[in-house]
Amino acid sequence: MARWEPGTGERLQDAALELFAARGYEQTTATEIAQAVGLTERTFFRHFADKREALFHGQKTLTDAFLAGLHDAAPDAAPIELAVSALRSSASFFDDERRSHSRLRQSVIDANPALQEREALKLVELGRALGGALRARGVEGTAAEVAAQIAVMAFGIAFAQWIADGEQRSFEPIVMDVIREVGAVAGPLAH
Amino acid sequence: MARWEPGTGERLQDAALELFAARGYEQTTATEIAQAVGLTERTFFRHFADKREALFHGQKTLTDAFLAGLHDAAPDAAPIELAVSALRSSASFFDDERRSHSRLRQSVIDANPALQEREALKLVELGRALGGALRARGVEGTAAEVAAQIAVMAFGIAFAQWIADGEQRSFEPIVMDVIREVGAVAGPLAH
Repeated sequence: MARWEPGTGERLQDAALELFAARGYEQTTATEIAQAVGLTERTFFRHFADKREALFHGQKTLTDAFLAGLHDAAPDAAPIELAVSALRSSASFFDDERRSHSRLRQSVIDANPALQEREALKLVELGRALGGALRARGVEGTAAEVAAQIAVMAFGIAFAQWIADGEQRSFEPIVMDVIREVGAVAGPLAH
Repeated sequence: MARWEPGTGERLQDAALELFAARGYEQTTATEIAQAVGLTERTFFRHFADKREALFHGQKTLTDAFLAGLHDAAPDAAPIELAVSALRSSASFFDDERRSHSRLRQSVIDANPALQEREALKLVELGRALGGALRARGVEGTAAEVAAQIAVMAFGIAFAQWIADGEQRSFEPIVMDVIREVGAVAGPLAH
């Protein structure tokens, strides 16, 4: 049996994505994913609770990238400045080399309603994690939720634009364009 | 076999909620839900694609309530004004008599990750429907998405407050408080 080693999760994740894209998500088993990288089903389930999770492996890293951005913000930053700092920090996760991988992953998700549901909940959970971190920095409850969800919303819109066919811009300028659009759209509410 | 009749969907929905709450979602079958109101499993599946859908029966009505709000807006309304008009219109769906039902339903959803996933995707789909309607009124793509998702975000935050223990305010004033908070939080982005 293969030993636990660094990178096993990543190898399983890559194999899962390739198989899901080539054969279809429903048609691929955890055993086949494990075998594709010379591992056993048992090893697969040490890394992932189920087949779907192999596609959502990056959630913790993404959440950590968001939360790391809070450290870069000024101590007296407004809630939305904290949220935007978290959002910009997430851009480090989506460098240009990752774009084709992200496109392939999204095509697998778009083809399967159960994966779309899991993805939707993952974004909700990202918002909750960020909202909790904002409250921990002293932001009041509703403001923390609003700021966190604005950041996650902007992330989702920017991500879809970043992986769109023919898009050349990097993730961060797209994110900042979306944030400017949030300001323009929400502007009338501030008066 | 029972005949198709108006209200059958609602009766099945109510029976499903009661059984899910009393016995647990996983422990309740579609057959049991149907039998509880004197119908067959076959009738159940004429109304709902699966057991989960009995909990999300209101999605179309909710979406329609949002979209109906667009008709009340001025022809030259800004994107966010259109979105807020849609959001306010949804308040008609959540009158005070509905609150205990909504609380019970949420307690069932909160106890089951698969239901939380479905709910998260339903909100994403609500945002897409509203975004599409805004684009159909001539709002540019990203602005339409931002305005629609702000409305859905405010809806979600307001809904959670509305069903919170001890909350007495009606849905619409809660929604308008959340919208004011969005304005306050996003205000710095508008400059």
